[in-house]
Amino acid sequence: MMGVESAKKWVYLFHEGSAEMKDLLGGKGAGLSEMFQAKLPVPPGFTVTTEACNAYYRLGKEFPPGLWEQVVEGVRQIERQTGKGFGDARNPLLVSVRSGAPISMPGMMDTVLNLGLNQHTLQGLAGSSGGERFAYDTYRRFIQAFSRIVLGVSGDLFEAVIAARKGLKGISIDTQMGAEEWKQVAGEFKGLVHRATRHEFPEDPYEQLRLTIRAIMESWNGRRAVDYRNYYRIAHTMGTAVNVVAMVFGNMDENSGTGVAFTRDPSTGEKVLYGEYLINAQGEDVVAGIRTPRKIAELAKANGDLYQELAAIGQRLERHYRDAQDMEFTVERGKLYMLQTRSAKRTAQAAVKTAVDMANEGLITRDEALLRIEPAQISQLLLPRFDEEAREAAIKRGALLAQGLNASPGAASGKAVFHPDRAAELGEKGEAIILVRTETNPDDVHGMLKVQGVLTARGGATSHAAVVARGLGKPCVVGCEALVVDYEAKECSLAGRTVKEMEEISIDGATGQVFLGRLPTRASTFTEQRELRTLLGWANETKRLGVWANADTPEDARRALEYGAEGIGLCRTEHMFFAAERLPVVRQMILAAPEAADTEDRVRRLEQSLMAATSEQRPLLEKEHLAAKEAVKTSRAVKQYHQALERLREFQTQDFRDILRAMTGKPVIIRLLDPPLHEFLPPYEELLVEVMEMRLKGGNVAELQEKDQLLHTVEVMREANPMLGLRGCRLGLMYGAINEMQARAIMTAACVLKREGYDPHPEVMVPLVGHVNELALVKEVVHRTAEQVQKEMGVKVHYQIGTMIELPRAALTADQIAREAEFFSFGTNDLTQTTLGISRDDAEGKFLLQYVTRGILSENPFQVLDRDGVGQLIRMGVEKGRTTRPGLHVGICGEHGGDPSSIEFCHGAGLDYVSCSPFRVPVARLAAAQVALNARKGQE
Amino acid sequence: MMGVESAKKWVYLFHEGSAEMKDLLGGKGAGLSEMFQAKLPVPPGFTVTTEACNAYYRLGKEFPPGLWEQVVEGVRQIERQTGKGFGDARNPLLVSVRSGAPISMPGMMDTVLNLGLNQHTLQGLAGSSGGERFAYDTYRRFIQAFSRIVLGVSGDLFEAVIAARKGLKGISIDTQMGAEEWKQVAGEFKGLVHRATRHEFPEDPYEQLRLTIRAIMESWNGRRAVDYRNYYRIAHTMGTAVNVVAMVFGNMDENSGTGVAFTRDPSTGEKVLYGEYLINAQGEDVVAGIRTPRKIAELAKANGDLYQELAAIGQRLERHYRDAQDMEFTVERGKLYMLQTRSAKRTAQAAVKTAVDMANEGLITRDEALLRIEPAQISQLLLPRFDEEAREAAIKRGALLAQGLNASPGAASGKAVFHPDRAAELGEKGEAIILVRTETNPDDVHGMLKVQGVLTARGGATSHAAVVARGLGKPCVVGCEALVVDYEAKECSLAGRTVKEMEEISIDGATGQVFLGRLPTRASTFTEQRELRTLLGWANETKRLGVWANADTPEDARRALEYGAEGIGLCRTEHMFFAAERLPVVRQMILAAPEAADTEDRVRRLEQSLMAATSEQRPLLEKEHLAAKEAVKTSRAVKQYHQALERLREFQTQDFRDILRAMTGKPVIIRLLDPPLHEFLPPYEELLVEVMEMRLKGGNVAELQEKDQLLHTVEVMREANPMLGLRGCRLGLMYGAINEMQARAIMTAACVLKREGYDPHPEVMVPLVGHVNELALVKEVVHRTAEQVQKEMGVKVHYQIGTMIELPRAALTADQIAREAEFFSFGTNDLTQTTLGISRDDAEGKFLLQYVTRGILSENPFQVLDRDGVGQLIRMGVEKGRTTRPGLHVGICGEHGGDPSSIEFCHGAGLDYVSCSPFRVPVARLAAAQVALNARKGQE
Repeated sequence: MMGVESAKKWVYLFHEGSAEMKDLLGGKGAGLSEMFQAKLPVPPGFTVTTEACNAYYRLGKEFPPGLWEQVVEGVRQIERQTGKGFGDARNPLLVSVRSGAPISMPGMMDTVLNLGLNQHTLQGLAGSSGGERFAYDTYRRFIQAFSRIVLGVSGDLFEAVIAARKGLKGISIDTQMGAEEWKQVAGEFKGLVHRATRHEFPEDPYEQLRLTIRAIMESWNGRRAVDYRNYYRIAHTMGTAVNVVAMVFGNMDENSGTGVAFTRDPSTGEKVLYGEYLINAQGEDVVAGIRTPRKIAELAKANGDLYQELAAIGQRLERHYRDAQDMEFTVERGKLYMLQTRSAKRTAQAAVKTAVDMANEGLITRDEALLRIEPAQISQLLLPRFDEEAREAAIKRGALLAQGLNASPGAASGKAVFHPDRAAELGEKGEAIILVRTETNPDDVHGMLKVQGVLTARGGATSHAAVVARGLGKPCVVGCEALVVDYEAKECSLAGRTVKEMEEISIDGATGQVFLGRLPTRASTFTEQRELRTLLGWANETKRLGVWANADTPEDARRALEYGAEGIGLCRTEHMFFAAERLPVVRQMILAAPEAADTEDRVRRLEQSLMAATSEQRPLLEKEHLAAKEAVKTSRAVKQYHQALERLREFQTQDFRDILRAMTGKPVIIRLLDPPLHEFLPPYEELLVEVMEMRLKGGNVAELQEKDQLLHTVEVMREANPMLGLRGCRLGLMYGAINEMQARAIMTAACVLKREGYDPHPEVMVPLVGHVNELALVKEVVHRTAEQVQKEMGVKVHYQIGTMIELPRAALTADQIAREAEFFSFGTNDLTQTTLGISRDDAEGKFLLQYVTRGILSENPFQVLDRDGVGQLIRMGVEKGRTTRPGLHVGICGEHGGDPSSIEFCHGAGLDYVSCSPFRVPVARLAAAQVALNARKGQE
Repeated sequence: MMGVESAKKWVYLFHEGSAEMKDLLGGKGAGLSEMFQAKLPVPPGFTVTTEACNAYYRLGKEFPPGLWEQVVEGVRQIERQTGKGFGDARNPLLVSVRSGAPISMPGMMDTVLNLGLNQHTLQGLAGSSGGERFAYDTYRRFIQAFSRIVLGVSGDLFEAVIAARKGLKGISIDTQMGAEEWKQVAGEFKGLVHRATRHEFPEDPYEQLRLTIRAIMESWNGRRAVDYRNYYRIAHTMGTAVNVVAMVFGNMDENSGTGVAFTRDPSTGEKVLYGEYLINAQGEDVVAGIRTPRKIAELAKANGDLYQELAAIGQRLERHYRDAQDMEFTVERGKLYMLQTRSAKRTAQAAVKTAVDMANEGLITRDEALLRIEPAQISQLLLPRFDEEAREAAIKRGALLAQGLNASPGAASGKAVFHPDRAAELGEKGEAIILVRTETNPDDVHGMLKVQGVLTARGGATSHAAVVARGLGKPCVVGCEALVVDYEAKECSLAGRTVKEMEEISIDGATGQVFLGRLPTRASTFTEQRELRTLLGWANETKRLGVWANADTPEDARRALEYGAEGIGLCRTEHMFFAAERLPVVRQMILAAPEAADTEDRVRRLEQSLMAATSEQRPLLEKEHLAAKEAVKTSRAVKQYHQALERLREFQTQDFRDILRAMTGKPVIIRLLDPPLHEFLPPYEELLVEVMEMRLKGGNVAELQEKDQLLHTVEVMREANPMLGLRGCRLGLMYGAINEMQARAIMTAACVLKREGYDPHPEVMVPLVGHVNELALVKEVVHRTAEQVQKEMGVKVHYQIGTMIELPRAALTADQIAREAEFFSFGTNDLTQTTLGISRDDAEGKFLLQYVTRGILSENPFQVLDRDGVGQLIRMGVEKGRTTRPGLHVGICGEHGGDPSSIEFCHGAGLDYVSCSPFRVPVARLAAAQVALNARKGQE
C-alpha cells in the first residue's frame, strides 16, 4: 500500500474533478470542480483529496510522498491562470484554504482566508486593491485566523489587543480604525504569536500553506470533530479534503461586491432570483450585519448586465443540478465569480412548490418531485403558523425579542413559566404555557408534557429540550443566547427585555423567533395548498400502500376524507363513551355488570356442571339450574345492566350512522370496546380522599354509603397493571352483552344507511386477541347478532370481522388466528409496549427519552417502529396469516402508521395499507409513494 | 363399505382376543381375553366390538348384518363351555352384559347382571344355587336394572315399591326380606314396567340380550356420555364394546365368596397380597358395606390353597402385565374365577416403591421404572401430610366428620370461614383459614388466594374449586355431601355437627377426609424416601437436562442441594432487601436516588453537551461542568445515597458469601436488582390516608411534612403499569451505582471464599433486557467492578455475565443479545405475561381461570408453558442465540421450570437446564429423565 502511495494522485485541479467525486474531494471541492467544468466563472484552485488526509494519519502524521510536490504544482497552475504570483510582492496571489468533508459537519472544521500575505505581498495587495487600510486589515485578519487555527493561539488574546488599541484611540467600531491602526495591530499580533509560540510568525507563503493544510487535516481528528462524528455516528475513516482557491475581492472598489442568491424564493418557492448583495464588501461584512445589504431585485436596475449574467448562471446551475440553488458570488472589479453553489435550504412550502413547478417545467420528473420532499416537512405545512401579517406587524413594533435555533416546528403562544412543576400544574388546568428554561433535563419532562411550547437558552438541535419537544410534537426554540433566566425572581431577560412569569410570549419553532405577547396563529387548510394537492395526486398514482385514517368522530372522518384517506382503519368506540350525557349511563352499566354477568353466567356454569354430573347429582343440579334461570329474570342488576346497555346502543347507533355515512363507499373498521371498565369510573385515590373527608367531617349518611360502595367497586376493579388486565376482547368474553350491544348498533346503523341509499362498509375489529379461541367466541356473538339485525330489518349489508394484532402471541400464532379473522390490523402501540415490555406512559418521562438521548435506543420506538423487534413480529404475522388465508387484508393502525420510516417498513412487509391520524394522512401518502419509488429503483 | 360389513367379524370370543385389541374390544374385553389366553380361570364369554357399535349408528341404529347371528353363536359357545343353557329352566346360563370403551369413562355407561332370568329359569337358579330367596332377590335385581337401563323406567319407582313392601312388613333392612317378599316385589316390578312401557317385561333371554346390547350401544350417545366426551375431548367415533360373560356366583354357599386383591399394598407399595373378601357374597355386597369384609391375609389361614392360587395368579398377572394388579375375583363353590384385572391405582409412595422394587426384581427395566411414575406424584410425596398417629387418634375420637372428593393434595388445618372477603381479610393478616363454601365461583378467587385450603359441598374433580385450588397448589376437598353451609348464620353443618366461623377444622386433600380441630402435619423429608432417592439416582443417569433450583437464601440453597439441584439458576437479590433491619436503609437509598443520580448525571450530560458545542459555547459549558463536578462533592443526596449503598453492600456481601459457600463448586446465577423501587416504599394509598388523617386531625407539623414529602416521592415514583416500567436493567441504567454495589458485593464474597479454599462460581444475570445496548452498558459496569475487586483482593474468580430472556424483543433479537450475553436464562413468568399481554396478578382472579374452565385456554399458561406462543419465542431465542455464540448455555428459571410438560418442551428446545423451586427439583429430575427416554424411543 505504502509503495503505491508515492505514485498516487493527491491533488485535483478543478478541471479534473466532478460532482460525483464527493467522497474523494469532499462536498465543497466536488461542487467547485463541477461549476468549473460547466465553464462557470469560478476562481482557479485545487483540492487535496480525503485520501491524502487518511494517508497522513496512516503515516504517523506525515504528508504522503508526492503530496507536497503536487500542491506546489497546483499553486503553479493557479498562478498561471490568474497571472498572479504566490509570494509575489507586486502582484500577489492570495488563497483561501478550507476544509470540506464528504458529509457536512457544520461549524466543526475551519477555514483560513487571505493566505499568502506577508510583509512583502502586503504591499502588492495595497497597490492592487487600492488601499493600505484594506491591506493591513486583511493582514491582521489573516494573522488572527492563522494563529488561532494553525498555531493554536487563543482567539481571546487577539480580541484583547484590538480592544486595547481601540481604547487608546477612543474608537468604538472597527470601521473607524484606519490603515495605521490596523498596521499597529498587525505588528502587535505578531509579537503576541511569538510570545505564545516562541516562534516567529511564518512569512513564507508556502510554509503558511503547508502548515494550514496540515492543521486542517489535524482538525479532522480534533476533539470537537471526533465527538461530533461519534454523536452522529459518522465514520472516522472518511477523512477531510482541503480546498485551495485563489482569493477574489468584492471590496476592491464600487465596481465590486459580494452576495448570496437563491434561484427560487426559499420561503415561498416562487421562481424569482432571491437574495441580497453588498457593493464594495467582502462576504464577512454581509454576515457581520454592519451595513444593510440590498435585495437582489435592485441589482437588476443598478447593473442589469450583471443581474442577467447571475440569473443565467442560476438557471444553468438549476438545470445542471436539477434543483434550486443557493449561490455565493463575488464581483471583483466588475467580474463575476461564483464561490459556492449548493442545493438551497427552503421552507416546507417552498420545497413543495419548487418540486411541483420543476416537474411542470420539465426540469425533473414527477417521480423525482415526489422524492424531493421530506414527508415530515409536509406535516409542517399543516401545523398552525403565525399569521404572516401579524408577524410583520410584531416585528415592526419591536416585539421580536430574540432568535434561537428552530428545534421543533409549529407556532405557539402562552404564558411564560420557568418551573416545570408550575408549568405542569397550570397546563393541567388548561392554561396555555410556554416553558422557559436555561436548559432542560429529564426531571423537567412532566412539565414539558403539559405545555404549548418550550424555549431554552442553551443547547442545539440534539439537546434534551429539542429531542423531547420533537418527540412530543411541540414547538421548541433552543440555544436562544439572548435569554437569561432568573429562577429565583421568576423572570427572564430576553435581549434585555424582562419577561415575568405569566407574561405572554410566542415562539415559532420553524423560524426560531421569539416574540413578546400573543400572536394569532392560523391553521393551514389543505385546500389552500394547491401544489401540495398536486404532489399528493401524483403520490396516489405511484404508491402501492393504501392510506387510511384513524377517526373516532364524524368530524374526524370528514377531515380524513379531505386529506385523502381511503378508509377508516380504526374507529375507537370507547371515545364515544366519555361524552357528558353518556358517562352516567356507562357507569350504571359498569356497576351492574359484574353481578349481572355472574347471575347470567351461573346458568351457563350449571349447564356445564350438569354435563359432568353423575346421575345421583343430576336432580339437585337441575333444580338449581331452574332457580338460576329464574334469578336472571328477577335480578335488579341484570335489569339495570341491560337497561344501560340499551341506552348505550341508541347512542352508538347514531354515532356509527354518522361515521358510516360520511365514509359511504369506503371501509370503516370499528373496534369493539377496549379499555378496562374502571377507566370510566372516578379514580380510586379521588374516591378514597372523598370518602375519608366525608367520614372525618361527618355528613349525609346515605351519600357516604353510596360513595363508599362506589369506592369498594372501584377497589375490586382496579388492577396492578391495567394494560395487561381485563380489557380488549377479554371484556366481551366476561360481559358478552357489551359485544352484542355494539354489534347491534353497528349493524343497525349500516342497515338504516343502506335503506337510505348509502353504501356502508362496516368492519368489526376485535381487540387484544392472544388466542384464536378468543376471537372465535367473540366472532360468533357478533356474527349471530349481525345476522339477526339484517333479518329483522330485511337488509343485507356486507360486513367483515377481523382482529387487531397487538400482542406478541397474536403475531406468533397468526396462522391460527387467520382461521377466524377476515382481516388483520397491527396495533403497533400495544404491540410495541408488550414486545419491549415498556409502558409508554410510565417510561417516556422516566427513562425512555433518556434511552434515546443516551443512544441506548436510536429512536423512540413509539414514534419509529422498532424493526428488529416489533417489525419481526409484523413480518411473521403477515406471512403466517397469509399462509392460512391467502390474500388476507392487512394494515397497521398504531401511531406508526403516520411515520415515514415505519411506512417504508410496512411497504416492505407487504401490508395493504397504513392508518394514521387525519393530520398525518398527507405525510403518509407521500411516504408511501416514496417507498414505492425507491423499491422500484431497488429492483431495477 | 356396507357390502363388506356382512362379512365382518363383530364378535370375539375370549380366546380370539388379546390385550393389544383394546381399540376393537374396549379395555375390559381386551383384559378378559388376555387373561383367558393366559389360561387364567375366567368365565367364558365374548365381546361385541366397538366397530359393531359404530356400524349400528352408521346404519341408522340397526344391528349390522351378521351381528346378531354371531352373538347367538357366541352364546352357544358359552353354553358349550359352561354346560348350561341360555333359557334352560333346569340349568340356566345367566350372563352379565357390560359396556367397555377403549378409554375409561367411569360412571358414564351401564351394566346389566343376571341376564337370562325369567319365570322359568328362575326355578333352575333356585335349584342350583340352593334357595328361592336368592333366586327371587336376583330376579328382582335383574328386572330393576334391566328396566332402568334398557327400558328407561325411572329407578325411583322401584325403590318406592320396595319401601312400600318393607313398610307393610315392618322391615327396615334388605336382609330381613324373605323369598316371599322378593317374589311379590318382583311381581309388582313387572306390573310397574308394564304400566310404564305399555309392554310386558320381556321373558325371552335372547330378546333380553338383544335389547341390552342395543341399549348399551345407545348409551354411547346418551347425553351424559356425549357431554363427558365433549368435556374431556374424547373422540365420539371411538364407540363402545359390549361384553357378554357367563355369570358366576360368590353367594352360592359358604364355599363361595368374592373379593378384590392387589398384588402389592396400594398405599405403601409393599410386596404383599392386599385386599379384602366376603364369604358367601356377591360383588355388590362388598361395595354396599352391609357386611364387614375380611382382609386377604386372613384367607391364607382360612383357605391356604385358595390363597396360594390367588397369589400365584397375581404373580403371573404381574409378570404378564409387568405391573402391580388390582384383581376382582369370585369363588363359586370353591372354584376361583377372575372377573377383571387392571393396573392397580396406588399412592405416590406405593408407585415409587413398586417401580423401584419391580426394577430390582428384574420385572421391568430401570427405564421402565422411571416412566412408571407421574412426576407430579412426586411432589405429593414431599407435601406436608397429617401425622399418621394423630390421624388414627382423631378417627378414634370421632373427629373425622366427613369424606369428600380429594381434589387437590396436601393437608391443611385452619379456622373455618364461609365468606371469601372475610377469608381474604383474615388470611392477609396471617391467620390460617379454611374457606368453606357450598361451591365456589370466580368471585371467590380473591379469598381462595389467601387461605390454607378449600372445602366445598358440591362439585367434582373439574369443579371451579378443584381447578383453582390445584392451580394454586392448595389442599382442596370438594363434593363433600355431608356439608351444608348457612352463610347467614356463619356456620356449617358437617354430617350433623355444627361448625361455627373461626372454629378449627382440618382437611386432607389427598384422602378427602375432613376433621374437626387441628391435626399436626409433618413435612416429609427427602432422606426418608429411600426408593425415591434410588429412582432419582437412575433419573440422573438418564436425563440430559440439568436440574437447578431457584434459591434466594442459604437455607433455600441447602435444601436445593439436598434435593439434588446441580446449581442455582436464579438468586433474587431483592428478597434480601425486605429484611426488617435492611428496609430502612433501602428506603434511604431510594429517597436519595433520583436527586443523587441527577446530580451525578449532570456531569455526564454536560460532557455530552460539550461534544456538540460550538467554540463560542464551550467556555460557559466548561465552567458549568466544573460546577457540576463540585456539586457532586457537596450534595447531601449524593452522600446519603452512597452511604446507604455502602451499608447495603455489606449486607449483600454476607448474603452472597453464605449462598456461594453452600453451593461451592456449583454455578450460582445472581440476578441484579429487578423490582421497581417503589415496591420498597409504603403503598401510595396508605400514605395518602395517613396524611389526610394527620391533616384533618391536626398534629405534629414536622411529622406531617415528612410524611407529605414521602407521599410526594411515592406519587412521583408510582406507575400505571409497574410491570412494564422502571425496573430490571432499566434501574441500573438510571441508577448505575446500584449495579456497581451489587457487583462489588458478589465479587467480594466470591474472592473471600476463594481465599478460604472454597470454589465459588458466581454468574451475574441482568434482568429485563430488551435491547443489546442495555446489556452492554450494564455489563461494562459489572465487568469493570469485578476486575477492580479482584485486583484489590489479589484473587482471581471465574465469573460470567449473562441475561434473562423475559421480553419478546429479547427472544426476537437473541442473536444480537448473545454478542454480549455469556449465558441466557428464560424468565418465563414475565415472558408469558408480555407475550400474552396478561398480568398474572390481575388476570388469575378476573378472567384467566374462567378462560381455563371455559376451555378458551387449555391450561393456565403460568403453570404449563404456552408452547405455541411463548414456546415459539424460546425456540427462536435458543436458535438465534447460538448462531451468534455456538454452545451458548441456556436455561429456564420461570415457574415452568418445575412443570413436567414444560420440561418436556425445554428438552426439545435444546435447553441445557431447568431451574425451579427446591421442592420441585425431584419432580424436575424425573420429568427430565422421562423426556430423555421418550425422545430416545422416538428416535428408535
